[in-house]
Amino acid sequence: MEDYTRQLARFAVRSRPGDVPREIRHEGTRALVNWIGLPINACRHDTTERAIAAFAEFSGPRQASLLGRSEKLDIFKAAFINCIASCIADYDDTHLATVIHPTGPVASAILALAEQQKIAGSDFLHALILGVEAQCRLARALAVAPAKCDAAWFLTGLTGAVGAAIAAARLLGLNEQQMVWAIGVAAARASGTRETHGTMGKNLVPAWTAEEGLQAAFLARQDFTTADTILEGPRGLGHLYTRESNFPALVARLGEHWEITRNAYKPFPSGIVTHGAITGALEIAEDLRPDPRAIRRVELEVHPLCLHLTGRRAPRTAVEATFSVYLWVAVALIDRRISIRPFSDPRVAQPLVVALRDRIQARPNEAFTRDEAIVRVSLDDGRLLERHVAHALGSSERPLDDEALTAKLHDLADEVIGERAATLLAERCWNIESIPDASAIVAAACGRGEG
Amino acid sequence: MEDYTRQLARFAVRSRPGDVPREIRHEGTRALVNWIGLPINACRHDTTERAIAAFAEFSGPRQASLLGRSEKLDIFKAAFINCIASCIADYDDTHLATVIHPTGPVASAILALAEQQKIAGSDFLHALILGVEAQCRLARALAVAPAKCDAAWFLTGLTGAVGAAIAAARLLGLNEQQMVWAIGVAAARASGTRETHGTMGKNLVPAWTAEEGLQAAFLARQDFTTADTILEGPRGLGHLYTRESNFPALVARLGEHWEITRNAYKPFPSGIVTHGAITGALEIAEDLRPDPRAIRRVELEVHPLCLHLTGRRAPRTAVEATFSVYLWVAVALIDRRISIRPFSDPRVAQPLVVALRDRIQARPNEAFTRDEAIVRVSLDDGRLLERHVAHALGSSERPLDDEALTAKLHDLADEVIGERAATLLAERCWNIESIPDASAIVAAACGRGEG
Repeated sequence: MEDYTRQLARFAVRSRPGDVPREIRHEGTRALVNWIGLPINACRHDTTERAIAAFAEFSGPRQASLLGRSEKLDIFKAAFINCIASCIADYDDTHLATVIHPTGPVASAILALAEQQKIAGSDFLHALILGVEAQCRLARALAVAPAKCDAAWFLTGLTGAVGAAIAAARLLGLNEQQMVWAIGVAAARASGTRETHGTMGKNLVPAWTAEEGLQAAFLARQDFTTADTILEGPRGLGHLYTRESNFPALVARLGEHWEITRNAYKPFPSGIVTHGAITGALEIAEDLRPDPRAIRRVELEVHPLCLHLTGRRAPRTAVEATFSVYLWVAVALIDRRISIRPFSDPRVAQPLVVALRDRIQARPNEAFTRDEAIVRVSLDDGRLLERHVAHALGSSERPLDDEALTAKLHDLADEVIGERAATLLAERCWNIESIPDASAIVAAACGRGEG
Repeated sequence: MEDYTRQLARFAVRSRPGDVPREIRHEGTRALVNWIGLPINACRHDTTERAIAAFAEFSGPRQASLLGRSEKLDIFKAAFINCIASCIADYDDTHLATVIHPTGPVASAILALAEQQKIAGSDFLHALILGVEAQCRLARALAVAPAKCDAAWFLTGLTGAVGAAIAAARLLGLNEQQMVWAIGVAAARASGTRETHGTMGKNLVPAWTAEEGLQAAFLARQDFTTADTILEGPRGLGHLYTRESNFPALVARLGEHWEITRNAYKPFPSGIVTHGAITGALEIAEDLRPDPRAIRRVELEVHPLCLHLTGRRAPRTAVEATFSVYLWVAVALIDRRISIRPFSDPRVAQPLVVALRDRIQARPNEAFTRDEAIVRVSLDDGRLLERHVAHALGSSERPLDDEALTAKLHDLADEVIGERAATLLAERCWNIESIPDASAIVAAACGRGEG
């Protein structure tokens, strides 16, 4: 049995910031810019507020900020809350091969750590990249052919704590054996079920990985031992979560090949599997401007996973609506754009929305890629408007550029911290490698520009 | 699809202390007496100390005691630490049908809660029984035929948080829907791998369930929503963790049949699967007193799970030794008794121990029950000493009586808090239904008799 866990740990301990190629460091920066607006935007969402209400009175030393807010909590609970907030809109990054969302658990954990101890921006970025890379590679090892992972598992939950633990352990300066333990502790309760999807509970799963990963690093620093073989061992993650694990993919060409280059940033706050259909609907809506009341019928052809994950036929709430490709297409055709918050409970029940939703049919096409879609809109006057989207907006073939990421940050953050603070935040993120203290990112994200 | 999660929640909300038959309440009290000495005994074990060192500086309001010690931590971390300590010796209770250890997660969570708010002893006991019952039934639904759960899963990790959440939610006075959410939150990351066994990490898994279960109750109190169908849903625990779930067993005859009557208390601090072999070795050692140096060969016949879980051939440390039936039998034959701490790292390497260990052979017998064993000791003089143990000490056929449980408490607690405090603790536990404030248990367990 090869010691895959140790090989991953060794790489994470030995890598130096300067070893990471410039374009990979830039991609890590892009991941941060894409993500940082999300916890700010959702900092007062019901989900976030209820979690804060449950835990605030039990907080330890209030060392770490809740992004977008003035309060602080202890570092573990701040990591938890910021990650929960960042997941709510389903607008975070997506590692396309595995559909995990790697930045949330990692960034939430080490942003909290950056307020507990001084961390240089370049070290912060390096740890972020290592954590994201490990998480994506672990997800590959568990879920990409020949590995096969039941789609009912919430793969971000299975892998997030390992990513967060590696990033935090790196910043705590752990040695190789401690890094092995950090991974082992973080993976001891790796889990998560998609049964939570469409509820507040969905956001808990990654949030707990952020907190547990950070805790794993602190436990490992105390030489808290655990199995050295948590990934590849006979009772380890490979055995438990996949029919045929592919651990060579976990360690192949570490430091040369980077999975973070396969991370995508969303143009719409919805599951990646809906993006082909939304792109097609928007193209039709923008170019041909059909009157939504004059739409007789809409036919979608999509990858089967789109219907598996977002096939809710008749959602009753805004939260449920995010898991309905029918709602997304209906709103795209009606609004001709997709904003950060297209749904509210009343909007989901609006007669125009409901009527259009009920005229949309979808069928799976096994031959499609995940971001491929055909959208056919039949109008009452007999016209047929059709788009075949080979690749959705935001896919690796049509990625958001840096300017679009800055615009996304502003869309998310301006209404909470103001445009000026958001501009400062964007500048600090883009220049993270040259800032002496990564907590300056947090300060800007809380509207404390001078911090 | 039947709403099993809701049926369980409804029972937990509607049950009244007086609805629980006297003998069941007595069994709940026995579970508490059996368990309470464990966190006290291990309160300064390396595992406990390292976990405290990792987390103490981040503690919130220090409302909850670490049993056996003078310090307090916030309720979540106190639940975590007390549960971790209680697992170290593998001396806690065992639900025989499923080999889960139900009291640790539940008792740890609600003892912490009892210091944060006043809870009458009778309510405390009632909540403990409900949590243990739910946990045992969930384990049955996932792992007892026709259900079949891969033995690599750490079933206490899969079920503990649900038990702790139900007990805590009950004491927080949650309504039925909130109870459903508490279960849903607690189960969202239900997990745990046996790859951790034989390391400190093994104890983390139940400890996290205690903490998460308690947190789940506080989240649910804030109406933090999640799936109503976390157990039976298409992506729920039944689908994920078992080839054929048996949810009727989760709810059958709730309030009439009690799984807690099938909970067993150990006479030896080892995995239950070793008890048949240890019982046989002790009977031979006590009755026939063979000289261990004159033992040529020992043959064991045991249930296959004994070797699967405790088959370590040549453990190097005291921790590893607890997962070696060979070491347990060797020490039983040498010492002619089993004390709370039979192993130390030097003892595991002692020539006499190693030599006897290496003369022990074991083979699985598929026809055996889990606590059945044959022990055959061949002596140099040609004699063959043999015992067929139909049922081990501590099994449901040969249970420890109340007096033995009190003695076990003293064995565990006297050396830490003194005999007088341990006597007081035992009295308060046996009389829990009549004490007005359950925190008096904690006070006694910390040697603060007057508390």
